[in-house]
Amino acid sequence: MQADLPDFDAYPVIQRIRTAEPIDSGVGVVWDDGLEARYHVFWLRENAPDAETTHPVTREQSLQLIDIPGDLAALSASPDANGGLMVEWSTGERSVYHPGWLRAFTDGAPDPFELPTRRIWAGDLGDALPRFDGPLALMDEAVLEQWATALHVHGVAILEGLPATPEVIETVPERLGPIRVSNFGRVFDVRSKPDADSNAYTSMALPLHSDFFTREYAAGLQFLHCLENAADGGESLLADGFHIARVMKKREPELYDFLTHTPVSYCNKAKDTDYRWSAPMIGLDEGGEVKDVRWAPWLRAPVRMPFEQTDTLYRALRTIFSLAEQPAHRVEVRLKPGDLLGFDNRRVLHGRTEFDPSTGNRWLRGCYVEREELESRLRILARQRRQRQVQAEKGKRI
Amino acid sequence: MQADLPDFDAYPVIQRIRTAEPIDSGVGVVWDDGLEARYHVFWLRENAPDAETTHPVTREQSLQLIDIPGDLAALSASPDANGGLMVEWSTGERSVYHPGWLRAFTDGAPDPFELPTRRIWAGDLGDALPRFDGPLALMDEAVLEQWATALHVHGVAILEGLPATPEVIETVPERLGPIRVSNFGRVFDVRSKPDADSNAYTSMALPLHSDFFTREYAAGLQFLHCLENAADGGESLLADGFHIARVMKKREPELYDFLTHTPVSYCNKAKDTDYRWSAPMIGLDEGGEVKDVRWAPWLRAPVRMPFEQTDTLYRALRTIFSLAEQPAHRVEVRLKPGDLLGFDNRRVLHGRTEFDPSTGNRWLRGCYVEREELESRLRILARQRRQRQVQAEKGKRI
Repeated sequence: MQADLPDFDAYPVIQRIRTAEPIDSGVGVVWDDGLEARYHVFWLRENAPDAETTHPVTREQSLQLIDIPGDLAALSASPDANGGLMVEWSTGERSVYHPGWLRAFTDGAPDPFELPTRRIWAGDLGDALPRFDGPLALMDEAVLEQWATALHVHGVAILEGLPATPEVIETVPERLGPIRVSNFGRVFDVRSKPDADSNAYTSMALPLHSDFFTREYAAGLQFLHCLENAADGGESLLADGFHIARVMKKREPELYDFLTHTPVSYCNKAKDTDYRWSAPMIGLDEGGEVKDVRWAPWLRAPVRMPFEQTDTLYRALRTIFSLAEQPAHRVEVRLKPGDLLGFDNRRVLHGRTEFDPSTGNRWLRGCYVEREELESRLRILARQRRQRQVQAEKGKRI
Repeated sequence: MQADLPDFDAYPVIQRIRTAEPIDSGVGVVWDDGLEARYHVFWLRENAPDAETTHPVTREQSLQLIDIPGDLAALSASPDANGGLMVEWSTGERSVYHPGWLRAFTDGAPDPFELPTRRIWAGDLGDALPRFDGPLALMDEAVLEQWATALHVHGVAILEGLPATPEVIETVPERLGPIRVSNFGRVFDVRSKPDADSNAYTSMALPLHSDFFTREYAAGLQFLHCLENAADGGESLLADGFHIARVMKKREPELYDFLTHTPVSYCNKAKDTDYRWSAPMIGLDEGGEVKDVRWAPWLRAPVRMPFEQTDTLYRALRTIFSLAEQPAHRVEVRLKPGDLLGFDNRRVLHGRTEFDPSTGNRWLRGCYVEREELESRLRILARQRRQRQVQAEKGKRI
């Protein structure tokens, strides 16, 4: 039996097709809730679920777009018995589209793959910092999803009560996806050491910053697992960079604009690697929304730009860095052994107060995971809900 | 003794400072070749090499930009004995700048960190495909650099005569930097298998494509090591996507423009991951130059866009995909056991002809490394040359 879907997802049937007819270069459809939609002939043809078009094992496309005749037309189009769409092509082939699938990809209909909306926070998040029971999250998929959702929505979440053992930093974040290996290795230890190759490995205060921005693509998620925290000082600092960008936009729109458009240089300092990248400090997506803040106060390279532009850049940097120093925009939290702090490294800034290594040990272990591993995990959890919904529908019909 | 440089690089002294004087918000300098330059007060202050400004071990910045007084001014500025710059600050501090370092970061002077210019190629590269002796490249740093440079400049290079053993795919690419782990693992085996989770793992022909474009950040370099290639068919296909984009721009400027601006949807098809990303198929950098081509004929997701836009998209896609089918724009090469093919996955498209698994085995092992690992390696090799140059200068002076 051929698959009735061109992918592995599940599509509950909420709407059905009322009428369908061939139109110029496509098929026109009226859905039973009145929504009118047009589907392009190539769009329909290349997304047909039959075994010649969609590989039955991989569900990837087997038919190449350029192998579809340029003059392909729909000879007839009609609803099928399930409320899906049946099309007869000028080539003699026939394609059948599942109504749940077709509706999901209809322009103007809700997108089932959309993730929850992010919520920007100021320094008032403090006590409301999302915290979850670590061992429970590993056993109960619903708690895992709450944690993952908080990481996406707030850009920060803590799992509490995990063992304070070195392997936790690998096993828990990997529940979301593979760890991103960097020049600092797969996992890194944040404790003061004499041969430090990063300011992070000293006992000095670290102002708010984000990691990895000497690279084209900074890691999306950072995890820090607290093993020991007995030294005086060493409180963790957090701030929502998207919030700070928003404040900057309101107060200093011209400097904000400068930071979203002018590439700034970043470079790492090392004996055996030399990563350099230039990009605006505030990165915008296609729609003009902030997608990442490249907040690297001490890993900026000396900029090479005309003097007047350099002057504007320094005014902009000093303004935005000062905003992050204001208590109203930041949260201070002391990690306990067993806490796993996770945050969106392209959004949430982190730092620490100075600590005194003579008063006790402070040891955090860290790793990175991509933002899109979290997004994939959230979509799979949503897919599983849709699969259960489709199963329940089938049960009802029997 | 304090470091005289704020980083670990080496800066041969080619020019020296002739005169220097304080100016409004900075220091004005005339170099001994006549170049006039202005350096901003904050730029100079935060890049000073002294131990309070630059951490002597990490060489990262210890002084925070916002801790520099807003009214800081240069009281005096003059050449020092080495031809560098000495500045006395209104705060009573004094900073000394190495002439080689200062010149390297001067707006308008040559940038020592610039990489060789890329060279775009058409299908005529065929016999000129850069090939190097694999065992020699691993022993001789000069050959390693030739290989790495070819990978950067042409976006493709082959190491020949390596052992046809499974571990080579890990040990050789790691000479450039860490392997990028993906949902396909650290290393993947390309051979036909019955439970294929990608079209790559069947015996079907694979039209030209690039990998990973269901992800926000596609891997920059792909390596394919040939272990066996005894089956009929299975020739490797390569094309320079930057060349094809250029041809498209010339022949169909409006459709080209559409592809550089309109986000297209990509998604993987899998039971346990769901990566989705939308981005224009031709990605441009800040300067409007092509930086990557997202060439994923069979991993595009069904687009959701207005009908007229869908129509334009399909015209554009069919045009550009057809260009890649023209023999004039592609190269066909048969890999031998022991060959390691490397290419820039964000630039060079790859594919294969169909093979018949009943006539013999075909087995490639692959992995990914980021483009910027290669760039870092090239910069370190250039740094080592500068270090030898500086050593030679010191030798001459003795």
